Amino acid sequence: MFSSLIARLVQALQILPGVGPKTATRIALFLVHKDRTAGQELADALHEAVSNVRECTRCRNVSEEPVCALCANPKRDTSLMCVVETPGDAYAIESSGSFSGRYFVLHGHLSPIDGVGPKDLGLSMLHERVLAESVNELIVATGTSAEGEATAHYIASMFHSENLKVTRIAHGVPAGGELSYTDVNTINHALRGRIPIED
Amino acid sequence: MFSSLIARLVQALQILPGVGPKTATRIALFLVHKDRTAGQELADALHEAVSNVRECTRCRNVSEEPVCALCANPKRDTSLMCVVETPGDAYAIESSGSFSGRYFVLHGHLSPIDGVGPKDLGLSMLHERVLAESVNELIVATGTSAEGEATAHYIASMFHSENLKVTRIAHGVPAGGELSYTDVNTINHALRGRIPIED
Repeated sequence: MFSSLIARLVQALQILPGVGPKTATRIALFLVHKDRTAGQELADALHEAVSNVRECTRCRNVSEEPVCALCANPKRDTSLMCVVETPGDAYAIESSGSFSGRYFVLHGHLSPIDGVGPKDLGLSMLHERVLAESVNELIVATGTSAEGEATAHYIASMFHSENLKVTRIAHGVPAGGELSYTDVNTINHALRGRIPIED
Repeated sequence: MFSSLIARLVQALQILPGVGPKTATRIALFLVHKDRTAGQELADALHEAVSNVRECTRCRNVSEEPVCALCANPKRDTSLMCVVETPGDAYAIESSGSFSGRYFVLHGHLSPIDGVGPKDLGLSMLHERVLAESVNELIVATGTSAEGEATAHYIASMFHSENLKVTRIAHGVPAGGELSYTDVNTINHALRGRIPIED
């Protein structure tokens, strides 16, 4: 029943994660009718971002500059580097405020079935950078899926012969989580990753 | 930590209903990185829709033409007209497939506190149109809020002296709904709106 422009917008909105025809219709009507100014600003912001955002040539995170603000920031601890699967993972760690080093974004994990190999993850770039920038510790924060674990081990193996500490972030019971509501996989991780209680 | 373009996009996305900073970040990263083509198409579709979609001069529904496809469709039953609060309401009724007449969109309901009067709802336009187009029945589908009910009664009173049937859609237990899970307000409506069982 809608005009072709609205129908096109409803269609385009459905590429968003978790947005089906109903939500898309609600959003479309909101944007073209309730808040036209905000709709125009969203269209412009999206156009600019999609046209200009590329990858940082050093850490592969999303960036509109050849070197992202984080890599260019001289205040970051150059001895620490954190390897993550996605820009969203880097964002989550950065939001926690507990990491002051630099990042390296793989954009995925090793997955031979899908044809994703070390080259796709930029692992040689990671290797070069770690050696060139005298990193002391490489924290691998890939996921707990089989592929995430395999990727972590592959990365660790790359630096066997170097004088570099390669660590993995802890996986276990979330802060505030109750054991009785925790899935068995997480409990497995929590037990295997147990650490001594310091005096 | 993000580039200014992504930060702007994250900000712009938060005008969407139900989207906070976290979801906005997830959507932004998806659009600029995972699916750039879809992101560009969404930006274009949104730009076109926001720039060109206005209101139908006859039913006030969203439309890019002066007269919307529904009002221009000669196959619609001109003796029936349905009054709704929003374009989304018209869409919902149209999706049900049980209405073949035309619509009139109020874009709200009477609300003296918010300064919304009959003029804002285009009620004189509705009055003219009903008389000019020899409508036989006006179905009022405004909401069950106090303002929605008041608007329905106001519209009915506008046509007291005319030979026009003004009806209200039924409010009651939803199809498939169980009485024990239905709120008291709905049960109130269902009881007051009871109809005789036909043989």
